[in-house]
Amino acid sequence: MIIAVDAVGGDHYPQHPVEGALKALEENDDLQVLLLGPEKLIGEELARHPDAGNRLDVQDAPQIIGMDEAPAQAVKSKQQSSIAVGLDLHSRDRCHAFVSAGNTGALLAASTLILGKLEGVHRPTIAANYPTVKGFRPLLDVGANLEMRPEMYRQFALMGCIYAETMLGVEDPTVGLLNVGEEEEKGTEDLKEAYRKLSSLPQFIGNVEGRDIFPARADVFLCDGLVGNILLKFGESIPAALQQFVGKAVREAGLDREQAAQVTGILKGALSEFQHETIGGIPFLGVDGVSMVGHGGSSPTAIKNMILGAVKCVENNINERIVASLNE
Amino acid sequence: MIIAVDAVGGDHYPQHPVEGALKALEENDDLQVLLLGPEKLIGEELARHPDAGNRLDVQDAPQIIGMDEAPAQAVKSKQQSSIAVGLDLHSRDRCHAFVSAGNTGALLAASTLILGKLEGVHRPTIAANYPTVKGFRPLLDVGANLEMRPEMYRQFALMGCIYAETMLGVEDPTVGLLNVGEEEEKGTEDLKEAYRKLSSLPQFIGNVEGRDIFPARADVFLCDGLVGNILLKFGESIPAALQQFVGKAVREAGLDREQAAQVTGILKGALSEFQHETIGGIPFLGVDGVSMVGHGGSSPTAIKNMILGAVKCVENNINERIVASLNE
Repeated sequence: MIIAVDAVGGDHYPQHPVEGALKALEENDDLQVLLLGPEKLIGEELARHPDAGNRLDVQDAPQIIGMDEAPAQAVKSKQQSSIAVGLDLHSRDRCHAFVSAGNTGALLAASTLILGKLEGVHRPTIAANYPTVKGFRPLLDVGANLEMRPEMYRQFALMGCIYAETMLGVEDPTVGLLNVGEEEEKGTEDLKEAYRKLSSLPQFIGNVEGRDIFPARADVFLCDGLVGNILLKFGESIPAALQQFVGKAVREAGLDREQAAQVTGILKGALSEFQHETIGGIPFLGVDGVSMVGHGGSSPTAIKNMILGAVKCVENNINERIVASLNE
Repeated sequence: MIIAVDAVGGDHYPQHPVEGALKALEENDDLQVLLLGPEKLIGEELARHPDAGNRLDVQDAPQIIGMDEAPAQAVKSKQQSSIAVGLDLHSRDRCHAFVSAGNTGALLAASTLILGKLEGVHRPTIAANYPTVKGFRPLLDVGANLEMRPEMYRQFALMGCIYAETMLGVEDPTVGLLNVGEEEEKGTEDLKEAYRKLSSLPQFIGNVEGRDIFPARADVFLCDGLVGNILLKFGESIPAALQQFVGKAVREAGLDREQAAQVTGILKGALSEFQHETIGGIPFLGVDGVSMVGHGGSSPTAIKNMILGAVKCVENNINERIVASLNE
């Protein structure tokens, strides 16, 4: 199993991707990693890890796509970037998957362009793993499709279900459409039409509301990429905000140092569910390959988990399952 | 100052509205309250409060609009409802404001129809008070306008600023447009156009993201009613979810009963910021009158605070300020 890793993606390259790759190799003896990026840069980082072993290769890719570059333009103009070279290798079956903590828009564009779409897929999508009281649940789309035509929800529902089953171990996942109320006639004309298109799916339980996410009233939450992206980033901001709210309450309650440490320790444990580190990265669903993206701020542990997640996608034949589900 | 109160709005009528009215009268000696609803029902509730005093009147309104009734149809067919009668009295200057914990859609429709719109206003809007580390900040629209034309954001920005200044005491409020990224060219075509329309406002600081709400990177957050409604209800679900996450962490840490009580007590204090009770209700911005809506589950304290909020709206001439701001 060979996983290609973008060594120059994210906010902390090459250090975090390289360290993440080494951690993944430690955990999985059958794994080989191919690091992509400017050879010299990677070489300097690897020099700090003399015991890296022989399951690690480097493929030179001299260009770097920045986190804020306009995706389409970057993909077009930087054909020697780590992203373009890595996905090209993957499209030629030289590796089993490609992972990156880099520019999400560029990764999506390049994945769609270079890998192509799975048979029957109209649009690829990105699902976030949202923390709920039952564990992570996919929420999609979170930014690949800011505006959605009603017919797109059905495919995203099926892809979300496969993702929930395969990657999160959810049995018989249900699907809810995020809306302003539960009744069928709620929402915009597009949402009403989406509801009708979804109605024939046995997994579909109807409209759900913002308050239904945390209790996981559905297993797969559908929304357009604008709603999903705002919800995703809002969710990521909850731990820091809660720490401030709790810090204030601790001061007002006049706790001593030890008591305060206990409270904040518990809170930290409770909020660990929100850490993207555990999941590491998410695949672009609907592309003909396994291409995953992680948070720009990914730690080495997050990168490791993204690599192991890619292995799981490959081992569980996520794409064959998606094609089978769409063509059922 | 006479405030009309819907005695049959919300999930706990007539008890909570009547008790809320009595609490408001206790706190404000210059206040008179007019209770609206079926006379007999209100009479029975008032019989439980023999010391209600003489600043409380009852106006018979025999019809009740249910929480789940289709708004337009309900307003049209129930002209003797508490909502219709109360707003009619307000439109004829027989009271200074109308407040209800009832059907938000029906209240918005009836307020727009019966009170009319303020001079220069294209569409009325509803703003939520979102809890942030700096205190409550308005997020609008949260359901009155599920789809927004780009030109609507500008008026909502100005109305949101007046609300933030007048009701929340925010000095020189800034405005942010919720989007998927900070750059001007991010988002849908409508959002890009909204950005351009907002650019001439000195209050506008540009696009903000989901993660910018809790830290209050802007004072007024603009979004369409679909995004806003989902965010609002998601936010309301945070306390219950956090209690579950923390409960699990407490059990896993093996705290004794006393330590556990301390942790949950602190958490409860920290999450009290999320209680809609403190704010009580929010006005429909842009209608020619003061019409406020509260949460269906409003407690008597929430109703009291909504009534006192209505007094504040009237005393601070919120509508005159809105008209002046729009015509500046």
